[in-house]
Amino acid sequence: MELIGEHINGMFKDIREAILKKDPGPIEYWARRQEEKGAHWLDINTGPTVSQAEQPAVMEWLVRVAQSACTLPCCLDSTSTEAIEAGLKVHRGRAMINSTSADQRKMDILFPMAVQYGAKIIGLAMNEQGVPKDASARAALAMELVVNADMHGLSMEDLYIDPLVLPANVAQDHGPEVLEAIRQIKTLADPSPRTTLGLSNISQRCAERHLLNRTFLVLGMAAGLDSAIVDVEDEMLVDAVAAADVLLNKNIYCDAFLRTYRQR
Amino acid sequence: MELIGEHINGMFKDIREAILKKDPGPIEYWARRQEEKGAHWLDINTGPTVSQAEQPAVMEWLVRVAQSACTLPCCLDSTSTEAIEAGLKVHRGRAMINSTSADQRKMDILFPMAVQYGAKIIGLAMNEQGVPKDASARAALAMELVVNADMHGLSMEDLYIDPLVLPANVAQDHGPEVLEAIRQIKTLADPSPRTTLGLSNISQRCAERHLLNRTFLVLGMAAGLDSAIVDVEDEMLVDAVAAADVLLNKNIYCDAFLRTYRQR
Repeated sequence: MELIGEHINGMFKDIREAILKKDPGPIEYWARRQEEKGAHWLDINTGPTVSQAEQPAVMEWLVRVAQSACTLPCCLDSTSTEAIEAGLKVHRGRAMINSTSADQRKMDILFPMAVQYGAKIIGLAMNEQGVPKDASARAALAMELVVNADMHGLSMEDLYIDPLVLPANVAQDHGPEVLEAIRQIKTLADPSPRTTLGLSNISQRCAERHLLNRTFLVLGMAAGLDSAIVDVEDEMLVDAVAAADVLLNKNIYCDAFLRTYRQR
Repeated sequence: MELIGEHINGMFKDIREAILKKDPGPIEYWARRQEEKGAHWLDINTGPTVSQAEQPAVMEWLVRVAQSACTLPCCLDSTSTEAIEAGLKVHRGRAMINSTSADQRKMDILFPMAVQYGAKIIGLAMNEQGVPKDASARAALAMELVVNADMHGLSMEDLYIDPLVLPANVAQDHGPEVLEAIRQIKTLADPSPRTTLGLSNISQRCAERHLLNRTFLVLGMAAGLDSAIVDVEDEMLVDAVAAADVLLNKNIYCDAFLRTYRQR
């Protein structure tokens, strides 16, 4: 299970201020902090702080500062393809692009970009018509992502398909559909594409957010979830992932399995 | 998700002493207490306290005392078929028999007994040769349980198949096999047989027992687990079940879903 730490995002106050003041301190802090807490990737999102025109320069700065402070690769999270490319140009090691949808126009730009820079890429199981209602519609869009990625020569291990969760208090019936979609997506190709989720969305404006987040993450792992964008400050969530990895026989049990998971 | 409270068992010191002294107090306490904590069933196990010959009388007494203190039905847990029948004779409402294995000799006694007393029954996916190694061997034994139950006229909703978990520290590879077995068992008949687990066994002599228990329970629920014998004193476990029932869209979300789950 790969955890993508969500904190370096202009939607958080400290990151927004750091971007506006060009202060590397909070970016470095959250890069190191999320690495210590068990993240495998750092999501990097400029947020709504800066204009479209400024986004490439801000993304480039964020990637440089974050990678100066830790050893993790970055997940370049932007709706601007220019900002993503600016991040790819300065990224050390293999980055991840977050994200393309199943829109033909976006796939035609972002899959070649992923191949050119040797990056992994998240594909959202949605298109111009929005988020599908059920598992099979999600799997159909996932298949479009698979076919287009393959056409561009991207390997299935580098495609992370996100079937998209909606908040449990407004779209509760989507929960089991997302889990079934994960199961179906894992059968679309051999080797399988990977799967991911923007987890925190399941509990937007819900009570018991942490409980809902970690419980849905474990349900997802039973269905074949390979990664998720999460709050790694949530220690009980990371503990649940460590436990599920042991119980699914993906990490070896030892009495110190929680410590071992974070210190890998 | 149906929770079977595990505490009324002669293996626990207070229950053993209550049995030896014929003191109803601790039995009444744990009957009420487990009902408050969210149990749907009370497991009733005389434990190793008394001789084989005394077990029927002790089971009868335990069932009478437990049902005098709460409204829950009992899950009569004994290797003695005489003790189970003694419990069935005094049980108010529909009981559950815990358990038959897939041994022909046991099935030929216990399935007719379940039908005669209108009881539900747990069937263990094991036989004289012990616990199977993988999912398909478990499913094959489950199929023998299904066929024999059906032959005796037991409805599939009244058959709870337990694919048997082993401790993660000695048989880690069984974890994913049990989850896959649950998935397969749910497809063996239409309507499906139910599934159950003696959950605490997954974490015997392991570190982080509560974490492993609740995480495996959620993994099981994703695979189609319908019930489990658990420690309902473990509030985080019951919270995880309440959350998973909401996320699997089996209970309606409301901001008070945790309280609602226990107060149903």
